[in-house]
Amino acid sequence: MSILETTLTKIYPQDSAARDEAQQRLDTLTMPHWALGDLMDLALDLAGMTATAAPVIEKKIISVMAADHGVVAAGVSKFPQVVTVQMVHNVVNGGAGINALGGQAKADVTVIDMGVNADLKELAEAGKIINKKIGLGTANMVEGAAMSRTMAQKSVENGIELANQFAEKYDLFGTGELGIGNTTASAAIGAVVTGKPAAELCGRGTGLDDEQLKHKISMVEKAIAVNQPKKKDGLDILAKVGGFEIGGLAGIILGAAANRKPVVVDGFISTAAALIAATIEPFCKDYMIFSHRSVEPGHAAMQQWLGCDKPLLDLRFRLGEGTGAAVAMNLVEGAAAILTKVATFEEAAISGADK
Amino acid sequence: MSILETTLTKIYPQDSAARDEAQQRLDTLTMPHWALGDLMDLALDLAGMTATAAPVIEKKIISVMAADHGVVAAGVSKFPQVVTVQMVHNVVNGGAGINALGGQAKADVTVIDMGVNADLKELAEAGKIINKKIGLGTANMVEGAAMSRTMAQKSVENGIELANQFAEKYDLFGTGELGIGNTTASAAIGAVVTGKPAAELCGRGTGLDDEQLKHKISMVEKAIAVNQPKKKDGLDILAKVGGFEIGGLAGIILGAAANRKPVVVDGFISTAAALIAATIEPFCKDYMIFSHRSVEPGHAAMQQWLGCDKPLLDLRFRLGEGTGAAVAMNLVEGAAAILTKVATFEEAAISGADK
Repeated sequence: MSILETTLTKIYPQDSAARDEAQQRLDTLTMPHWALGDLMDLALDLAGMTATAAPVIEKKIISVMAADHGVVAAGVSKFPQVVTVQMVHNVVNGGAGINALGGQAKADVTVIDMGVNADLKELAEAGKIINKKIGLGTANMVEGAAMSRTMAQKSVENGIELANQFAEKYDLFGTGELGIGNTTASAAIGAVVTGKPAAELCGRGTGLDDEQLKHKISMVEKAIAVNQPKKKDGLDILAKVGGFEIGGLAGIILGAAANRKPVVVDGFISTAAALIAATIEPFCKDYMIFSHRSVEPGHAAMQQWLGCDKPLLDLRFRLGEGTGAAVAMNLVEGAAAILTKVATFEEAAISGADK
Repeated sequence: MSILETTLTKIYPQDSAARDEAQQRLDTLTMPHWALGDLMDLALDLAGMTATAAPVIEKKIISVMAADHGVVAAGVSKFPQVVTVQMVHNVVNGGAGINALGGQAKADVTVIDMGVNADLKELAEAGKIINKKIGLGTANMVEGAAMSRTMAQKSVENGIELANQFAEKYDLFGTGELGIGNTTASAAIGAVVTGKPAAELCGRGTGLDDEQLKHKISMVEKAIAVNQPKKKDGLDILAKVGGFEIGGLAGIILGAAANRKPVVVDGFISTAAALIAATIEPFCKDYMIFSHRSVEPGHAAMQQWLGCDKPLLDLRFRLGEGTGAAVAMNLVEGAAAILTKVATFEEAAISGADK
């Protein structure tokens, strides 16, 4: 069996016994019933994901997967492609948004080269990034498939391998990415999977004006028309209109689920990766925590397709890199603390409510 | 001059030079413009509050002010009054929601006895709580003033004294409270200050049913009719329909502003305290950070009166204790990190957007 096939055999739904046990405890905590709302819902999920009513959420890692996109040749981004590799250096040097917010959350931040259009061997050899390169950027999806099906599977499997490694040390995963052009690929994935028109999935990315946005929409429409991705086949969609970092993140998510690790899904691009992962194996949705609602207008439709009506945060973020996941990790820790550290009425000998 | 008067002379608006300097830096960070949305707005506020473009947000304290309310005799709460002192012990023993979430945020959590209806000398002498007691609970506001004007001023000044002490050690303040019956007092304050009907300000508190909620609304209406609080006189409102812990928190907020410390305002009761503080000195609003939108339906109206349309979080909390403030402190730290740790395009030598 391939790594992917083996992984899929290990993905189970959340553990209902652990959820029930957690529910029983949460129902009797020293507070009005369910008074910490969404974080108590999340605490139940953590119990179900980790299969214990006393989940430990301490060590956290955010995988920032970087890759380039051939579709930038079609003029879909305000920034030149070289910014991808420049931003890789910025994260390595500690100067990016994810360094600030990952640092606040005390999460490790690791950059993975999934397919940046530059030679990054030196950084990899110095241990500053992880090399899982599939190629020097994808092909232009407007003219044909972004990558072969073999490369698509390899990108997912590279993510799974990392998830398996990280599972030995970390309790909580987060997704992040760098890649000029990747909101375009993500919008195409979103349109294919949700069945909604490209215009509803496309946003301004790094800052397009009205004219540029119209062009981006037409390029996504063309990429879908040219490639005809099969909406039930995650690897087909990934190959035709995806990206190497999106495949890698889908692998992180599938690997998280196979290892019973909660994974905090960041913004628009990470959610496109979640769509790919859920199209490959729907049960992996049981391990996703939706960090925030991005400014990108298509984000809500993608989250809803995945079963999330209300992510944890809505802070008008539109950066990616894993920044929303980083902030949300604090809330995940908080949810675990509610479940494991708050006393019950009985333990604290506190009078109950009148009946 | 009284402590209160002296404090009011020290409250200035946010520093506009520091805001401008922060704006200039934030405009040039290595990300699409303002891509971390609300946290960048908050970073500007932090600069304005602390009068520096490099604010330090490290040491945090949440003041959990506890007191009892005579209005519980009117049957406005599902829990008996004794739960206030029981919850004081629960926090001291580390078993309450605020211990879990304050712990996650690495904030110190301090209980202050502002007027619990019990002898708490032993806890105070053991250094486990701070004694700032005004009395053994307020009088029943349905029958007359909750406290004298002198007591109202003293409760605010006790809060100011604490804020002055905390300012020597801490960078960020948070508000929290314990007090059976205090959503009723807070609803009355909200109705008086915003001018909205009691029915719009009252909610289910710790879990009232429809009948009980109707009764609570009628008690708030009666308290306002009996006392006729003057809506422009914060001390008058506090004396007639307030509470000792609400006065103490108003003092924490005024003291924070006088010391140029950001103060994270928790939920419904803390926001009532913020209304009192802002009625006494409107410029103290410049130092408030609104942590979350509570389930209590009147919370939005109170926050809007204070100038906040969208607090940082909406997690369906309805606990108080400072729990929303605790979670939000992570975001405040994140905002400071964005301002002080992210590189500019120039520093990182990254290509800009096409014009």
